[in-house]
Amino acid sequence: MKRLPLSEVYKLIEPGPVVLLATASRGRANVMTMSWHMMVEFEPPLIACVVSEANHSFRALRTTRECVIAIPPADLAAKVVKVGNCSGSEVDKFAKFGLTKLAAEQVAAPLIGECFANLECRVTDTRLVRSYNLFVLEVLAAWTEYKGRQQPKTLHHLGYGRFAMSGKIFRLPSRMR
Amino acid sequence: MKRLPLSEVYKLIEPGPVVLLATASRGRANVMTMSWHMMVEFEPPLIACVVSEANHSFRALRTTRECVIAIPPADLAAKVVKVGNCSGSEVDKFAKFGLTKLAAEQVAAPLIGECFANLECRVTDTRLVRSYNLFVLEVLAAWTEYKGRQQPKTLHHLGYGRFAMSGKIFRLPSRMR
Repeated sequence: MKRLPLSEVYKLIEPGPVVLLATASRGRANVMTMSWHMMVEFEPPLIACVVSEANHSFRALRTTRECVIAIPPADLAAKVVKVGNCSGSEVDKFAKFGLTKLAAEQVAAPLIGECFANLECRVTDTRLVRSYNLFVLEVLAAWTEYKGRQQPKTLHHLGYGRFAMSGKIFRLPSRMR
Repeated sequence: MKRLPLSEVYKLIEPGPVVLLATASRGRANVMTMSWHMMVEFEPPLIACVVSEANHSFRALRTTRECVIAIPPADLAAKVVKVGNCSGSEVDKFAKFGLTKLAAEQVAAPLIGECFANLECRVTDTRLVRSYNLFVLEVLAAWTEYKGRQQPKTLHHLGYGRFAMSGKIFRLPSRMR
């Protein structure tokens, strides 16, 4: 994968795609499906996310304070849902669903080869974890596989397994970053 | 508009649409465009959002602790961008862009008639405002205009005025809410 400038990270998260969250704890990798996340700062890129304490990944995230946020293309939808339908406490999801672990540069959690973007993250603020399971992450390194504007379509969760794929792209004159 | 059960609110926010944030301060309404928001809890619905202190809305939000999050259909894109391109410190955006203010039930901020969903919100947590301009809101009442599954297409910001419209909808067997 090709390194993505950190200043570009928000363009991946701001549209609200379903993502995968990879963790590694005691030498064992795990992955969950996540849709509750948002940008908090452009640069260094900060991302807030909610990881329920009911998720097996919660403990790994809180203990190791590291993770990878990976953005799946829409055609990975079936696997994305399957990842969300089972728990890492019972299953090695990378093996079961044929997801490829790639070594990250700065964190122990793996990048996911089937995803078109991977963000290596460190937990930087846990003040709202007790109240809401809300973590603030700093993106340390970012990687992508697509070239230029050929970004794959993404998944957007509407509830209970209903998804909207991202569709037509257009541009309007804007002063917004 | 028709009342939407609070348990359904997450289905509107989780897909990551661009929204409008309406406030009212000293009898004057204002509106901004926002893309940094996420769900935090299903019910009562909690939403986190980042409103930069550079935005005129920041002060109204922090002072009145109330707002309306309105979700524009994709065909409102041109107005949504114009709302984001100017400041409420200089312009009455509702008048300038022909947006319709409707009375909310529980907050002073107005609902926006051209939006297909409106969420009346109260600020419930400001612990991360100083660090990140991050507010936690509770949705007090929710309103929609669309019937059943005829939800309008939404806007998803890719940066610098590039938007993806939500596209094809499909469903996969899922245990996720």
